[in-house]
Amino acid sequence: MSERVLVTGGAGCIGSELCAALLARGQEVIAYDNLSSGKREHIAPLTNNPRFRFVEANVHDPVALDAALDGVSFVHHLAANPDVKFADDEPDRDLRQNTLATAALLDAMRRRGITQLTFSSTSAVYGTSPVQPIPESQPCRPISLYGATKLACEAMISAHTNLFGLRAWVFRFANVVGGRVRKSGKTVVSDFIAKLRANPRRLEILGNGKQAKSYILVGECVDAMFHVVDHAQDSFNLFNLGGDDWLSVTRIAEMVVEELGLNNVEFAYTGTEAGWPGDIPRFRLDVSALSGLGWRVKHTSEEAVRSAIRGILAIS
Amino acid sequence: MSERVLVTGGAGCIGSELCAALLARGQEVIAYDNLSSGKREHIAPLTNNPRFRFVEANVHDPVALDAALDGVSFVHHLAANPDVKFADDEPDRDLRQNTLATAALLDAMRRRGITQLTFSSTSAVYGTSPVQPIPESQPCRPISLYGATKLACEAMISAHTNLFGLRAWVFRFANVVGGRVRKSGKTVVSDFIAKLRANPRRLEILGNGKQAKSYILVGECVDAMFHVVDHAQDSFNLFNLGGDDWLSVTRIAEMVVEELGLNNVEFAYTGTEAGWPGDIPRFRLDVSALSGLGWRVKHTSEEAVRSAIRGILAIS
Repeated sequence: MSERVLVTGGAGCIGSELCAALLARGQEVIAYDNLSSGKREHIAPLTNNPRFRFVEANVHDPVALDAALDGVSFVHHLAANPDVKFADDEPDRDLRQNTLATAALLDAMRRRGITQLTFSSTSAVYGTSPVQPIPESQPCRPISLYGATKLACEAMISAHTNLFGLRAWVFRFANVVGGRVRKSGKTVVSDFIAKLRANPRRLEILGNGKQAKSYILVGECVDAMFHVVDHAQDSFNLFNLGGDDWLSVTRIAEMVVEELGLNNVEFAYTGTEAGWPGDIPRFRLDVSALSGLGWRVKHTSEEAVRSAIRGILAIS
Repeated sequence: MSERVLVTGGAGCIGSELCAALLARGQEVIAYDNLSSGKREHIAPLTNNPRFRFVEANVHDPVALDAALDGVSFVHHLAANPDVKFADDEPDRDLRQNTLATAALLDAMRRRGITQLTFSSTSAVYGTSPVQPIPESQPCRPISLYGATKLACEAMISAHTNLFGLRAWVFRFANVVGGRVRKSGKTVVSDFIAKLRANPRRLEILGNGKQAKSYILVGECVDAMFHVVDHAQDSFNLFNLGGDDWLSVTRIAEMVVEELGLNNVEFAYTGTEAGWPGDIPRFRLDVSALSGLGWRVKHTSEEAVRSAIRGILAIS
């Protein structure tokens, strides 16, 4: 039976892909987004579907949010500040867009008795873990306000599952790439493409290039979310989401160079261990809990990133 | 050498005891409190000391906070909502008084370059732990918004230690009792005393009486804080603070009956496992990290609670 589903951040990279998948499953979908980082073009292909509706508003706006929640039985909460870097001119950005937005949503859901929620958390909650790959049981010591404010959301969700009958699925994502990608240069892939187009002889690489992280294609990410919601039935369900491999920044630079058909590009490293303050230089996720539910990633981190590179080059 | 120290929540139960101890150590002390739960009488004995100053203001008030931070080199952040229960008429109380107040303080400290902080966290961050006694490495699954918003503070502090050169000592307190106690009936001890004075024949006990928790005297708590600050020198230092025993609610009721000189009191249990939604029925703290620094609690939970009972009866 069709149910009405709200997707906050529905015009974002993951949100728009999730909206499309929910429509394909026969759901009635409301994409809710303030377009601070989401884009209309991400959801343009969905707007002709009579089961789709777009609401341009802030999660902080209590009137707009409450109206959008009317008749909704399931919320996918993806709205967030997507940039891990600290913004000196907006020091409370992560607090507002992550923690306060989530608190507002949780309270609105409590008032309306809406009891199903997925939440897009992040592997950044762990900080620099001495244990690799990192299991969900690893103590969290975030090194960025992005990671800290996402962990705050997880904690409030945990409390709501105990106090108010909420059922929640919390995902600590690897780096999600591909799909309706942002073109504005916020990811390492789009950053390298933009820099190499400006100067095809020399590429500045933040850090020492040895940063190594785990990457997953957005389509697979959405697929895993559905799988977990269908198969994990605790009140509070927490899963690392990704594969268990990793890929170095230098290797990504090499792939971008290859895909652009360039040669003899000089790599100029800024030299620090982390790309920027708050960047986690190296991490892999222990995904045995996810595997235990019968889901495994189909593409390696390298395949995911190569696909993302080609996706960006095809449309820009 | 004397340094200027700010104690938020300085008129509270722990804060006022800490102010007295800091003055005894020769520090210049500013107690900062909005008196929402703190009380002037707690700090009255300190006001004649020329090195003591009281500021009545909210941590949220940026002008008052920034002024109070002038010349300060160390902050003890104890201001918080002290009540674990959810307040239906004020659902954002924990968020505001814990998370937002701490975020405001951290940002004000960052702007002023103040780099030393203690923070009063709580064993409530763990939620209902399957592991007892609970080590600091146990994953946190808070079951109250009180615990969730305190965990959010820990996470932001962790990020600030990485990003902005902050050094922090975070304490997950057992139940702190005794000292300049609140008389308003917020603790189990003062609750039982008030009820038995109203009706000395029958005592209503929230829960099944088997709730068992760890208690520490406020004087010992403050002593442990100093010890840890003096001996733990990581940038982010996290310690369970208490003893490793526990004490049942029924035993506390028996002790209050004894100390009041009553007999044949009927105990009427409300019967649930937890005292109220969000209450953690049973917990003990693994304090081996604290022991490893050479500090051990001197009084058992039972001795601490008996001392607290006598303290309240002596002044009320």
